[in-house]
Amino acid sequence: MTRYASYLTPAGAPTWGAEKDGTLFDLGPSGLGVAPTLRDAIVSDALSSTPSTANAPAQAVDGTRFLPVVGEAAKVICIGVNYKTHQAETGRADAGHPTVFTRFTDTLWPHGADVRIPPESAMYDYEGELALVIGRPAHRVPRAAAWDHVAGYAAFNDFSARDWQRHTGQWTPGKNFPESGTFGPYYVTAADLGDVDELVLETRVNGEVRQHAGVADLIFDIPAIIEYVSTFTPLAPGDVIVTGTPGGVGLFREPPEFLAPGDIVEVEITGLGVLRNRLVA
Amino acid sequence: MTRYASYLTPAGAPTWGAEKDGTLFDLGPSGLGVAPTLRDAIVSDALSSTPSTANAPAQAVDGTRFLPVVGEAAKVICIGVNYKTHQAETGRADAGHPTVFTRFTDTLWPHGADVRIPPESAMYDYEGELALVIGRPAHRVPRAAAWDHVAGYAAFNDFSARDWQRHTGQWTPGKNFPESGTFGPYYVTAADLGDVDELVLETRVNGEVRQHAGVADLIFDIPAIIEYVSTFTPLAPGDVIVTGTPGGVGLFREPPEFLAPGDIVEVEITGLGVLRNRLVA
Repeated sequence: MTRYASYLTPAGAPTWGAEKDGTLFDLGPSGLGVAPTLRDAIVSDALSSTPSTANAPAQAVDGTRFLPVVGEAAKVICIGVNYKTHQAETGRADAGHPTVFTRFTDTLWPHGADVRIPPESAMYDYEGELALVIGRPAHRVPRAAAWDHVAGYAAFNDFSARDWQRHTGQWTPGKNFPESGTFGPYYVTAADLGDVDELVLETRVNGEVRQHAGVADLIFDIPAIIEYVSTFTPLAPGDVIVTGTPGGVGLFREPPEFLAPGDIVEVEITGLGVLRNRLVA
Repeated sequence: MTRYASYLTPAGAPTWGAEKDGTLFDLGPSGLGVAPTLRDAIVSDALSSTPSTANAPAQAVDGTRFLPVVGEAAKVICIGVNYKTHQAETGRADAGHPTVFTRFTDTLWPHGADVRIPPESAMYDYEGELALVIGRPAHRVPRAAAWDHVAGYAAFNDFSARDWQRHTGQWTPGKNFPESGTFGPYYVTAADLGDVDELVLETRVNGEVRQHAGVADLIFDIPAIIEYVSTFTPLAPGDVIVTGTPGGVGLFREPPEFLAPGDIVEVEITGLGVLRNRLVA
């Protein structure tokens, strides 16, 4: 299984590459030049066979500044209320369809980077999620063909300003503050990652487990999501779908418990690494 | 007052220009080359003084194929439930904040073009609206400074698949079918258009008036919208905000009345022309 990352070289140049045992091998513009970005590599299907890392410039993961693992997505589509445990804590009734909201691409933010709590929010919260990246154009894709359109996966933290999310019925404001969509550290192709129903997602705050669920617990599974979303909007390679968060968010703790400066949030998903961010004021 | 349009030349090349008495004067790449697109002209502030049309290639408006008047917006932000008459027909309570949802840019569609009713929707509806285009970067802009960030205006039809809009609490699916955001025909700078409170918006279906309101009736006026939206997301020149629709949508007629193939929908706003689209199956 090869894990890919987007990151800065020691000289500060954006690149991407493959990670192996704590070392990053540069496949991007400052390295072997397989593609300008990881997103471009996905779009051009350059990862369908694993690129060689022989003679690639190497750097240690330790000390590396990461970038959002797949940036420049034209569409970042998020699914809400998609685990029974989270549905139960929200008190929402069953919906016959996936709940869909959107993020602007400029909310994407790297693994390892500090996340600023917006000064306008007193209710900043985490949501650990599995994100998928589209690999082939998808418009009105039936469920049976949906897997063919998934290129790969990464972890996502859908940071949410609960007060702004609840200003009205539409969640857009609470889901689009800058730096609120952390994405990474690693991208793994669908072929390499295998059966997503085997994946476990865990979110920790300062080491305390807050969310722990199997991806098999999704209410609308990935084929259902792709079938539904691709009916109303055409999806292109590089587009991102964030599949929803399990129960255990801070909003529904008793009493509610929101993020504070200094908190460390980690989202860990089997095979995809640990997405870690520190909150700052 | 100068009205600008985005359109195709007789040879099929995309361009933009100024309209005068039924003639379009090409200021784009196939003409005087003021800027590659109308959006670029807005972003580069090329319309702060009116470009000369002397010696510009001319073509009649009649027979011209238009383009979405300002395309390629990074963000298309829509405000819901923003006229008292529409709020009343929806039965919604007062909200203390604007209701914000989003459109993907690929939903933008031209004046004059046929609009396909999605085969998956049995409840396709119109919403005539005033759209504004951002002219200066806007992040955390206070109300008093908001007008300085508005470059200009055009009419918008926020076509809505009501069944898909109501699948869940989030409206994204009903607002993002392809071809569902018609935008144009003309863009007028804020300086030229003057006081938007003087504007009247009217939507007609097959000539019958369905919506008729003054923009002065907006619940959250344009400075309030910009102040609120720019707090949670930074706005850039060329971004579009669609300000909401008045009462009179098909959904709340008694009985409800949705669009059918062959219907002609017109949205007319003082000074901005008539945005006309025919529905097709």
